[in-house]
Amino acid sequence: MTGDNSIFIGNKPFMNYVTGVVMQFTTKGAKEVTVKARGKFISRAVDVSEVAAKRFLEESVNVKGIAINSEEFVNKEGKQVRVSTIEITLERK
Amino acid sequence: MTGDNSIFIGNKPFMNYVTGVVMQFTTKGAKEVTVKARGKFISRAVDVSEVAAKRFLEESVNVKGIAINSEEFVNKEGKQVRVSTIEITLERK
Repeated sequence: MTGDNSIFIGNKPFMNYVTGVVMQFTTKGAKEVTVKARGKFISRAVDVSEVAAKRFLEESVNVKGIAINSEEFVNKEGKQVRVSTIEITLERK
Repeated sequence: MTGDNSIFIGNKPFMNYVTGVVMQFTTKGAKEVTVKARGKFISRAVDVSEVAAKRFLEESVNVKGIAINSEEFVNKEGKQVRVSTIEITLERK
């Protein structure tokens, strides 16, 4: 379910992601942008969303919705593991 | 806005928080429990909510709502800093 307007958060420099979100709304004219992350990057996804929405796009976007979920998979050692996910959808006001 | 049914996530052992959430719903009969965290503990708050709701209380609670926000304060060095926050509200079905 990865649309064109999704930003997936990993360990690149923080401002890369903020710029990515801001540019989707400004340069590309997106109406919605979804910030996605798994596991330890969830905190970072919240930071990116907050900084993009409040510091860079103030007054023009807000949080439309936030969903959390779990993904289960079998790791290299054959063990069943669970990881949390988050999707934060920002929308133009 | 810390009600009686809030669990604030920090660096105690993970299962302490899961048990805390589960017991609010079972032993204490709460209708809603809010899991709160700041900064790097946000990922953990999502993990606690997911494990409590899906593994321990399966079918009986779901996510009612999730709010993210920012807090600004002046740190020890006199510098203005921003920290993200999350509040995940679980409700009995």
